[in-house]
Amino acid sequence: MSQQRHGSTPGEADGVPAFPDLPEATIARLPEYLRALHHLAETGAETVSSEGLAAAAGVNSAKLRKDLSHLGSYGTRGVGYDVALLVYQIEYILGLDKNRAVCLVGVGNLGHALAGYAGFASRGFRVVALFDADPKKVGEEINGLIVQHTDDLERIAAEESIAIGVIATPPGTAQAVADALIAAGVTSILNFAPGVLSVPPNVDVRKVDLAIELQILSFHEHRKASLTALPGGRAAAVAADAAPGKAAPGNAVPGNQEAVGS
Amino acid sequence: MSQQRHGSTPGEADGVPAFPDLPEATIARLPEYLRALHHLAETGAETVSSEGLAAAAGVNSAKLRKDLSHLGSYGTRGVGYDVALLVYQIEYILGLDKNRAVCLVGVGNLGHALAGYAGFASRGFRVVALFDADPKKVGEEINGLIVQHTDDLERIAAEESIAIGVIATPPGTAQAVADALIAAGVTSILNFAPGVLSVPPNVDVRKVDLAIELQILSFHEHRKASLTALPGGRAAAVAADAAPGKAAPGNAVPGNQEAVGS
Repeated sequence: MSQQRHGSTPGEADGVPAFPDLPEATIARLPEYLRALHHLAETGAETVSSEGLAAAAGVNSAKLRKDLSHLGSYGTRGVGYDVALLVYQIEYILGLDKNRAVCLVGVGNLGHALAGYAGFASRGFRVVALFDADPKKVGEEINGLIVQHTDDLERIAAEESIAIGVIATPPGTAQAVADALIAAGVTSILNFAPGVLSVPPNVDVRKVDLAIELQILSFHEHRKASLTALPGGRAAAVAADAAPGKAAPGNAVPGNQEAVGS
Repeated sequence: MSQQRHGSTPGEADGVPAFPDLPEATIARLPEYLRALHHLAETGAETVSSEGLAAAAGVNSAKLRKDLSHLGSYGTRGVGYDVALLVYQIEYILGLDKNRAVCLVGVGNLGHALAGYAGFASRGFRVVALFDADPKKVGEEINGLIVQHTDDLERIAAEESIAIGVIATPPGTAQAVADALIAAGVTSILNFAPGVLSVPPNVDVRKVDLAIELQILSFHEHRKASLTALPGGRAAAVAADAAPGKAAPGNAVPGNQEAVGS
């Protein structure tokens, strides 16, 4: 999954950022912390240690403390973080109090899966419209919504003031769908269609490509195999062969720790 | 989507990394470059400029040059990168020459979408087994594969020497499925079930949570709205309110540039 990040850093006033420009990796972990915090709140917990929250969210506690420091949350020594306050801060930053309207374009198997995904409603989103270009699918009811024709996408997306458009169409039509969404005023797109969307600078695109996720895992399989199958010397030779010339160890690259999720 | 990264940095021999330990963000972009390079190769292109490849992959060219330098690919001034060589280098690093066996657990709507996803085969993976716990789904044929019962998952995954397991089950059963996959020798898991999997250090887990993707877009919607709706001063006050105490601008954090996809 990749993020096409456009637009510049928020303007500053008196040296204070207009909006905290969090590292993308931190933004991506905030929903994990929020999910863990909601579970803790349901159990009646009022505070949580950074270690406890980190374990529940599947990250290491040093990274969690650094992430939350971006929100101005440092917790209290010996007490930890106030669960309710942290939930409020994260939901505010993520803008989840807005209960944003989402439309879904393309109701094949993936579209059906997305339309039926219960997790959306519980996490601050309303799927308000479904679209498909296939006349056989138009009129079909999925989770109480009638599939509408993509010819009406631009008009309806504008009427429903859609905030986020989800594209689950074949690659060939994804750009046209994105153009229609953008023409309707949508400025955030979640794209499941392989390929790169061309969008104006004010539009954020996140992309989920299932094959790319597998290729990233394939890298780790290859890495692990090269380490277990070969003694260091041979493995070094293989790595050098794989990457002739300088094969810089990732950790020598500034910012790696931020880049490497964990 | 998040990466639970376990295991330590590869051992080194003579100061050479046993395997290039690339930044996670770089690894995630390599498949994009590969897809763009395959398109170029189909058009008969033998070389490509960093700007041309960057545009085709939807990243900026400085980031692309840095990413490829990790592979020891620097291109030739005035000529660019050799398409065939770069394809070979990226496919080698990603281990795509292995044509890895993938199994899919959970054939609901999402599972059906994944099982029917043509992109897998074309990008170095074979879906060789499908599993579900629902007796009504067992025996169903999807894309030429018969859905088998999860009771047989561990045995079959071992027999088929599955490299990567894809979990598309409800959250409640994801951990049990992961345990069975790991018991069968699977060391890479792609998890679509919300929540955190507990896995041993040698197992890599990548996670795709659709609601999390939307929450990340919600952050950008919120950020954009706060910038357009409010003059700098007011916006700064809002940001300060959202994050009492220090609201560190992300770009002050080392490594942000790596963390922020683009």
